[in-house]
Amino acid sequence: MTSSTMGPTRQKRATIVDVAHHAGVSTASASKVLRNAYGVSDAMRERVQASMDALGYRPHRPARGMRGQTFTVGMMASDIENPFFSIIADGITSVLKTENYELLISTGGYDSASQNASVDALIDHQMDGLILIAPVVSGADLERIARDIPLVVVGRHSSSAALDSVSGDDDLGSALVVDHLVELGHRRIAFVANHQDQLEPDRPESVRLAGFLGAMDRHGLGGEAVVIDSRWSLEGGREAARIADTLEHPPTAVVAGADVTALGMLSELWETGRSAPAAYSLAGYDNSRTSSIGPIALTTVDQSGFEMGQAVGRLLLERISGRTESTHLLLEPQLVPRATTAAPAV
Amino acid sequence: MTSSTMGPTRQKRATIVDVAHHAGVSTASASKVLRNAYGVSDAMRERVQASMDALGYRPHRPARGMRGQTFTVGMMASDIENPFFSIIADGITSVLKTENYELLISTGGYDSASQNASVDALIDHQMDGLILIAPVVSGADLERIARDIPLVVVGRHSSSAALDSVSGDDDLGSALVVDHLVELGHRRIAFVANHQDQLEPDRPESVRLAGFLGAMDRHGLGGEAVVIDSRWSLEGGREAARIADTLEHPPTAVVAGADVTALGMLSELWETGRSAPAAYSLAGYDNSRTSSIGPIALTTVDQSGFEMGQAVGRLLLERISGRTESTHLLLEPQLVPRATTAAPAV
Repeated sequence: MTSSTMGPTRQKRATIVDVAHHAGVSTASASKVLRNAYGVSDAMRERVQASMDALGYRPHRPARGMRGQTFTVGMMASDIENPFFSIIADGITSVLKTENYELLISTGGYDSASQNASVDALIDHQMDGLILIAPVVSGADLERIARDIPLVVVGRHSSSAALDSVSGDDDLGSALVVDHLVELGHRRIAFVANHQDQLEPDRPESVRLAGFLGAMDRHGLGGEAVVIDSRWSLEGGREAARIADTLEHPPTAVVAGADVTALGMLSELWETGRSAPAAYSLAGYDNSRTSSIGPIALTTVDQSGFEMGQAVGRLLLERISGRTESTHLLLEPQLVPRATTAAPAV
Repeated sequence: MTSSTMGPTRQKRATIVDVAHHAGVSTASASKVLRNAYGVSDAMRERVQASMDALGYRPHRPARGMRGQTFTVGMMASDIENPFFSIIADGITSVLKTENYELLISTGGYDSASQNASVDALIDHQMDGLILIAPVVSGADLERIARDIPLVVVGRHSSSAALDSVSGDDDLGSALVVDHLVELGHRRIAFVANHQDQLEPDRPESVRLAGFLGAMDRHGLGGEAVVIDSRWSLEGGREAARIADTLEHPPTAVVAGADVTALGMLSELWETGRSAPAAYSLAGYDNSRTSSIGPIALTTVDQSGFEMGQAVGRLLLERISGRTESTHLLLEPQLVPRATTAAPAV
């Protein structure tokens, strides 16, 4: 991995941020003067104008098409419903703030066409760089986007030379859960897969599934591994719980793959008068806020979303500053054992 | 400006003229397809679209519409952690999509300075209109922003002539909860307030508090109303539960003001071996996704976030199209009784 050098080393002309610093006012205020916006006092206008003169600042106005001029970074996620995305965004923002960058978020939906449209909209709005959260677009699309704009991808296990990526070590995360369950005495264990019409091996759901199967194998339990094909959503979790009920040799523990799936399973169990771990042990993935709420107390895997976001922010600022060698980070997850896993009833 | 080169050189972008030539149609026809204008046949649309795809054509946003429109709308919310915001965003997007508008989201944080900076950034990025979700900026700031750009505000009970607003009827929502609890037999009822250094009467927390006190009065229970000053967050809910435990005359029911507050209270109860409604009845507000999960089963108030978002989207498109008279909508909330409210133990 390349070492992190923060801030541009190139010789640059004065920016609006420099003007704001020089004038001792906020970037927003300096920007207002520049835009001749309402609500600016004469005193403020004179002060900022004096600093512009002193620094030889030449406004680009909306500097269309030039890099490093808008101090805004775009982030695309499928939706803003997934609470893990908001934790990542907080981490990103905490880093961007130190360099006076703003973050704009676009929800790209769940298919590659709408995600590509969303990315195009961000590029057209003069972002200085782009962050894609768990994109479903093709690898070729990612390469194309990276030719247009500095790019960091989250949650795709990429090795592309054109972009940076930050992921949790999903292989290890699945193994941590399996180890925990086997240690409790479980042997027959199910994994809820997030259905893909065409399996893409670099997506988190693929890596977590492979990690589950690999860990079961290492424990000599390959023959006890059950895969339930459903979707990682509340409704998908409910469906997985119904499927689990129909199995001839039901598992004593379920690895739900994602917290949201586990929460759907808990709801289905609850509505049929059951709970975890009494019905079966249940583990999620993400350590979402909801998983920690008392009556839920879901065993899960923490992905350090905030730190992940910080790393993403740092990498993107480096790319915007001119780094072209790619960096791919894999962050270590932690098991968070709570109340939904226990020794099998038997 | 000097800058490092960012990877391979980019190709010259195809123009609308190139697309028209490729498709063998007039530039005016191609432009109509691009603007999604009326009077374009399906055959023409498919033909031009195929040429756009073949040439990798992407419109320059500022050149895409008439009168300098960018077909992008900005939305500012304090954060994207509140799941209610994502439901509103879904409703907004569902309407914007029909007119080919994109939505960009900015997280403005929790104080008026950072929210104003966030709004400035959106305006700088050439949004056609702006949506502010439960902003904490002053009324004067809202008026100023509305002079710069078409504006719809969500969750402020505004009567400004300069902007549109959409809110839930928070007064009625609080009354629905109080009526429900009184009907169950409760008399001593607490409300968890979201602390404001300076009370702004048009914010939802102010209206919900006033609605609670008014409803208690109507039931002749003004003397039984308890107000716990905390914050509407998970941690604020935990603190409210600890405060409730210290009260000399503890309430038999708590109106938490927001789901997130109720979830914090549930967590605190759970960690001390208690639950709702056994310890006290507990009601949230928002009907967030988490409130519906089996083991939570929180009684709450549904604000129809999706429909609220749809109304917001429609109003903003009207404003962008030239409407200048203001519209202020108040949507009717519904009580959602679940498992956390019951008759008092006595």
